[in-house]
Amino acid sequence: MADVAHAVGVSSGTVSRALRGLPGVSDALRRRILRAAENLDYVVSPAASGLVTGRTGSVAVLVPFIARWFHAQVLAAVHEVLRGAGFEIVLYHVEGTAERREFFETLPVRRRADGLVVIALSLTEREARRLDGLGMPVVGAGTCLPGGLPEVGIDDSEGAAKAVHHLANLGHERIGMIRTTDDEGVHQGVSRRRLAGFRSAMGERGLEVAPAAVVSAPWGADGGARAMGELLSLREPPTAVFAEADDVAVGALRTLRRSGVDVPADMSVVGFDDSPVAELLDLTTVGQSVREQGLVAGRLLLDAVQQVGTGDSRVRLGTRLVTRGTTSRPGGASHPR
Amino acid sequence: MADVAHAVGVSSGTVSRALRGLPGVSDALRRRILRAAENLDYVVSPAASGLVTGRTGSVAVLVPFIARWFHAQVLAAVHEVLRGAGFEIVLYHVEGTAERREFFETLPVRRRADGLVVIALSLTEREARRLDGLGMPVVGAGTCLPGGLPEVGIDDSEGAAKAVHHLANLGHERIGMIRTTDDEGVHQGVSRRRLAGFRSAMGERGLEVAPAAVVSAPWGADGGARAMGELLSLREPPTAVFAEADDVAVGALRTLRRSGVDVPADMSVVGFDDSPVAELLDLTTVGQSVREQGLVAGRLLLDAVQQVGTGDSRVRLGTRLVTRGTTSRPGGASHPR
Repeated sequence: MADVAHAVGVSSGTVSRALRGLPGVSDALRRRILRAAENLDYVVSPAASGLVTGRTGSVAVLVPFIARWFHAQVLAAVHEVLRGAGFEIVLYHVEGTAERREFFETLPVRRRADGLVVIALSLTEREARRLDGLGMPVVGAGTCLPGGLPEVGIDDSEGAAKAVHHLANLGHERIGMIRTTDDEGVHQGVSRRRLAGFRSAMGERGLEVAPAAVVSAPWGADGGARAMGELLSLREPPTAVFAEADDVAVGALRTLRRSGVDVPADMSVVGFDDSPVAELLDLTTVGQSVREQGLVAGRLLLDAVQQVGTGDSRVRLGTRLVTRGTTSRPGGASHPR
Repeated sequence: MADVAHAVGVSSGTVSRALRGLPGVSDALRRRILRAAENLDYVVSPAASGLVTGRTGSVAVLVPFIARWFHAQVLAAVHEVLRGAGFEIVLYHVEGTAERREFFETLPVRRRADGLVVIALSLTEREARRLDGLGMPVVGAGTCLPGGLPEVGIDDSEGAAKAVHHLANLGHERIGMIRTTDDEGVHQGVSRRRLAGFRSAMGERGLEVAPAAVVSAPWGADGGARAMGELLSLREPPTAVFAEADDVAVGALRTLRRSGVDVPADMSVVGFDDSPVAELLDLTTVGQSVREQGLVAGRLLLDAVQQVGTGDSRVRLGTRLVTRGTTSRPGGASHPR
């Protein structure tokens, strides 16, 4: 390490801090040190370093459905922060509930990482206890962690309420909702929270939630398409629908197009997320700052691993209504009532 | 390790193979062994294991733009194969060319992994030589690796030719192309190969490629929108356009909609990839098997790391034309000429 320090012209302590990803070293200096170490063929062995510090130099990320826009965006931002601090990122991708159970049963992350970021999973009490037993910092992003674990997310309930108020302000009274279920037909926490916000805002506006007007389907366009089909088959279909995610709303729009139902004149649709597909399809939606959630989660974990920072460890970012072409007064803007 | 073997009722050798992710152990048995090891609080330290075997138990994945559908799909499939074999997946995400240079300069993957999967990067000769110096197996997916490195991908040139033949068969003679550039304005290998296929098929059909009808823009819907704007401003615009990716074609469709150009009657559009957005927008496109490319890449790397398998190490999967609503004869199906 002394030759690296000599080559860069800093102390061995600074080299050590830089190579171990500790704070107090600027990004530019860290890069110079990394390059010097590289040129001198000096390789920091995480194992060797771990013998001294008890650290692995790695951070784990647990994420379901990496191909969904939200998840990939958060992962990219978490990666950016933690790689920037010199950590290796170990990826645990779980698609189905079986893989999820396996992860929490075997906890492969043990002794492999200095900390864990959980993306977009609402943990059960039991799952949270399992993570607690890991003895490493855990931070959530777009999750709902029990027990006061540090996390960053949005107020899902408030976001859903914004969709209802927008539709109610336009004059809609019969408003339906499309929810999503996981591969075992269960509503995850995010769906429960968005339903709560939907119900509560409907109540505030004195509007009745018809039980048949709240339908559930598997995540994705096909699920959304099927759910909208169900709503259209009601004796008295809603005049507006809040879909709990853009990826579901786009399927609903497909069914409406194929059924010859004019959007927004005969049916208004609001999504949630403001993903690129929402802009493409001119979908009114409730937007959230996704990249920001990943950046904050990365910083929260960094603080916890390095035992610095005493900032807020439960961060709620705002949501915003993005009005586009899929919402109007019932009957369409040209026929106000 | 003996207590784990005793608990499961297998030999210590089998336990060792299972915990180290070596072949010859069924998935079901590996799970039982993992659970027993878990119950006995037995943790395989990769460092300890590495002292004996020289292995890290980890595999690295280098991937740009994780939020793009193709990349995320391939990553998920690679993860599935390699996690299934007991490896940890270390993620190196590079967004811009600066990060890419930094990766190849510092090679953080050294001594951190037993092998490397490169997703969707066309490597330069110099980059390939750097990886060669790592002394670990390297496999590409959706890449173009020099020097005969193992890889799986599609024939981009043949795929682009399918788009041209489809349009020529419909009677189009003035066919344009939208290409994409990276953040430094450079065409990556995939873009060069798709252009080659476009040109070659145009030549085969005796059609002229007007230089102004081949336009370039940054990846994404905004780039595609701008590129289509350029094409519409030509004195004699094409009657059909091949966009080298669905994510670009959707932007082109947006410009056409906003310009009041009827699709497909006044302009046919073909994309490439058959991503979910293509189905949503009823886009004719050239489809490729994305998940399959990830699975094959994972298996190729597994074979190389475990020094088994002597199968083909350069795999080319087929492409297929998916005809939807954005292509027709010039003037529309109802006005054939």
